[in-house]
Amino acid sequence: VTDAKFYQALGPVAAETLAAGSPVLGDRTQAVASVAPFGSAQADGLSYRDGRPKGPLPPLRGCVVAQEALAPSLLEAGAEAVIIAPAPRAAFARMLGMLFRQRAWMDDGPAPVIEAEAKVSPHAILSSGCMIGAGAIIAPLAVIGPGCAIGRGSIIGPHVSIQCALIGDGVTIGPGAVIGERGFGVAGDAGGLVDMPHLGRVIIQDRVSIGAGTTVDRGMLDDTVIGEDSKIDNLCQIAHNVRVGRRVVVAAFGGISGSTIVEDGARLGGRVGIADHRHIGEKAELAAGSAVMHDVPAGEMWGGYPAQPARTWMRQAAWLRKQAQRKSDGGQ
Amino acid sequence: VTDAKFYQALGPVAAETLAAGSPVLGDRTQAVASVAPFGSAQADGLSYRDGRPKGPLPPLRGCVVAQEALAPSLLEAGAEAVIIAPAPRAAFARMLGMLFRQRAWMDDGPAPVIEAEAKVSPHAILSSGCMIGAGAIIAPLAVIGPGCAIGRGSIIGPHVSIQCALIGDGVTIGPGAVIGERGFGVAGDAGGLVDMPHLGRVIIQDRVSIGAGTTVDRGMLDDTVIGEDSKIDNLCQIAHNVRVGRRVVVAAFGGISGSTIVEDGARLGGRVGIADHRHIGEKAELAAGSAVMHDVPAGEMWGGYPAQPARTWMRQAAWLRKQAQRKSDGGQ
Amino acid sequence: VTDAKFYQALGPVAAETLAAGSPVLGDRTQAVASVAPFGSAQADGLSYRDGRPKGPLPPLRGCVVAQEALAPSLLEAGAEAVIIAPAPRAAFARMLGMLFRQRAWMDDGPAPVIEAEAKVSPHAILSSGCMIGAGAIIAPLAVIGPGCAIGRGSIIGPHVSIQCALIGDGVTIGPGAVIGERGFGVAGDAGGLVDMPHLGRVIIQDRVSIGAGTTVDRGMLDDTVIGEDSKIDNLCQIAHNVRVGRRVVVAAFGGISGSTIVEDGARLGGRVGIADHRHIGEKAELAAGSAVMHDVPAGEMWGGYPAQPARTWMRQAAWLRKQAQRKSDGGQ
Repeated sequence: VTDAKFYQALGPVAAETLAAGSPVLGDRTQAVASVAPFGSAQADGLSYRDGRPKGPLPPLRGCVVAQEALAPSLLEAGAEAVIIAPAPRAAFARMLGMLFRQRAWMDDGPAPVIEAEAKVSPHAILSSGCMIGAGAIIAPLAVIGPGCAIGRGSIIGPHVSIQCALIGDGVTIGPGAVIGERGFGVAGDAGGLVDMPHLGRVIIQDRVSIGAGTTVDRGMLDDTVIGEDSKIDNLCQIAHNVRVGRRVVVAAFGGISGSTIVEDGARLGGRVGIADHRHIGEKAELAAGSAVMHDVPAGEMWGGYPAQPARTWMRQAAWLRKQAQRKSDGGQ
Repeated sequence: VTDAKFYQALGPVAAETLAAGSPVLGDRTQAVASVAPFGSAQADGLSYRDGRPKGPLPPLRGCVVAQEALAPSLLEAGAEAVIIAPAPRAAFARMLGMLFRQRAWMDDGPAPVIEAEAKVSPHAILSSGCMIGAGAIIAPLAVIGPGCAIGRGSIIGPHVSIQCALIGDGVTIGPGAVIGERGFGVAGDAGGLVDMPHLGRVIIQDRVSIGAGTTVDRGMLDDTVIGEDSKIDNLCQIAHNVRVGRRVVVAAFGGISGSTIVEDGARLGGRVGIADHRHIGEKAELAAGSAVMHDVPAGEMWGGYPAQPARTWMRQAAWLRKQAQRKSDGGQ
Repeated sequence: VTDAKFYQALGPVAAETLAAGSPVLGDRTQAVASVAPFGSAQADGLSYRDGRPKGPLPPLRGCVVAQEALAPSLLEAGAEAVIIAPAPRAAFARMLGMLFRQRAWMDDGPAPVIEAEAKVSPHAILSSGCMIGAGAIIAPLAVIGPGCAIGRGSIIGPHVSIQCALIGDGVTIGPGAVIGERGFGVAGDAGGLVDMPHLGRVIIQDRVSIGAGTTVDRGMLDDTVIGEDSKIDNLCQIAHNVRVGRRVVVAAFGGISGSTIVEDGARLGGRVGIADHRHIGEKAELAAGSAVMHDVPAGEMWGGYPAQPARTWMRQAAWLRKQAQRKSDGGQ
């Protein structure tokens, strides 16, 4: 599913070439041309597994990077080849550069396509293969990366940079926002630290607004998605693989960590942070300043640090206030 | 009070045209050419009212957008016309585009005026009608919007964007700051969500410093104002209609929500957030990290989440520490 | 130690000239050409002292700005001259403009040097005297300030601005990051408020990654340093004179205040703030959202607001939850 508009395929590459000297079990000549999360690769796919899964292995295809102890069971589950690495995530990260290359700002390629009535500043930078929809406005010094599409009637502010992203119709992106930058992830092994490559995209659906200085990182293998009519304020951070639903409101300094899902109609007050891999239910409300470490059920209001149901949080604060007051009045 | 330097007037428009099919009570031909907060419109003004005011209605003029039940009393209070809408705020938002158009980055217009001794990078973008004061420095890739004025001796960093703003003398604005972007506000009705249009300005007074990446949104109908000698650090967010007094210090990640007033000499530590429509008194001090939900009296020091007087907050923290320690030592 | 690549020396200047009418004790003709922290100046150096030191004075050289009462002992400790000022820090700040001038974006000077295989966008801005290493990539609309060096294979994103900074090899800097801006500091006296001038640098060592929109301020007299292999996420703020060690990880919205030291291998969760002049030990871990007011010993995990050892913080939260629950169940 790696989008050829944003990533140039360099493969296929044989498993033993990717291994670069590490041991390979199974078919050393297995051709690898794509990447996928563990358990969803095709026959030509590369995936990795760090540690033994809790349940039984899913049916597997393609080439898997894993620790030695896990290799026999991976082959048994259907993997064509296993590349042995003590730190599979870091090894996987190092291999991706042999399979894909992100199209660069300065690449040659097809001329940008600009539909009728779009207003593109002569001081905006349009990279090869990008597409500007009818009636869109691209402000001075916006930079639209290779292959990106900007929908009809959308407004892209000055100093916005967009890469690896598809932007819907009627979207507004404020000055200085950064859409589609690589997500934050580090893997380490004996060779040192590696920034995880990111081969996904950002999808911003129709009528979304994104505030000034806000950053929306692209997904690693999947996409980061902001749903229709969602409104995101200034200086927010939406991490890789996050899925924000429709009509979600995020006030300033909101931070949503990697792979978290925020369902339709949720409302985040100012400076709300949500940990990674959480689920925020439909129409949940998160009070300003709350730091959410757990899943929040649909329709509930939470607050606090760490966040709890708002009623509990308020009751605790009131109880503490009363107790501390009494003791300092009384004796103690 | 909509500033013609930044907004082109499109009216006058008859009330029935603005209504676009919604019912109009009173004079359907009433000419509308300006906008104002409820209660301060002129005869040609448009305002809106969401819900019934608590006290008696003020004397009214012009055309008001309101729910049906309120219409008779609005006419009685002096309104020339009432446009009926189930969600007045959203309806009002949709009408503003018929009355005003923000002057755009790429509009033609009078050439920029650059006073003597100003140094403007050949890579800066000056829009039509802007004014650069004597001795000012405009760094490469700064974008100065239509009609904006930069005062004498002010320094505008690279990648700064400024729109709908008047900047005083001796001001410094750090790289990547965003001044005058539309504020964050959403209104909804059966037609969906609307971003509230903003027709106000940002006024930055003399000798203010604004840090890198900081955003200062323009007011909705009024102005956002930063007073003389105030110093704002990197990555802060000052929302629409905020009024910051003189010699106010705001450390990094400070966030001041809409319409809040911060009086002279107040000091905000790092990562202080203040809710909307609050009042922070003269020389108040807010400890780093505090989330201020209430008004803070002049001269007081507050801290905590939610913020309380600092002494109370400290006492509670100490009491809690002692109790939790004792119980875990003792039995329980 | 003021780096001539970034700051043009204007001196030497006689002490009495710097004093601009304020009293001078000792040698009024003492030539001043450099600046240094108190106690480490050379004979031609300017330093300042606000208030009496706790212990005995160190041996002194050069010209010191100080309050009158301290002057005799400063001369006795070896200072060649003392400039008397009621607010020495503000007076010192005002003098620095006579000694140094930051090289400006638009200064003439030696042409940039670009090594082989570097890819510099034709829309990037390279200032005089800067150096781009072999294989580096400079994206469109990046601005590289006078005298800055970008190491081999480093990638500088769009809308990045860099000044007064030396960037190592294999570094990645995300879109819109601001490196080397003046730090945040204000001094005041009868003449009003002054932004503290900054004459230091930013040093970013090999293989560091800096996220989109992150700001790293340069030091005042010394440098701000980010050590090898450290990874900093989006929208972080690293203040002046901070020293970050090697393999440090800082998640989004991290804020490190002035002069704080973070040792090798420390890990900061999202939205961690650290007060100024703190010391965070090797491999310390700071939980997401924590506001660190104290030093943290090596290897410890802290969290909370204000931050405490994580175990204590957790125990307090659990105890509070239980008590507040019990009382609201029971009677009260």
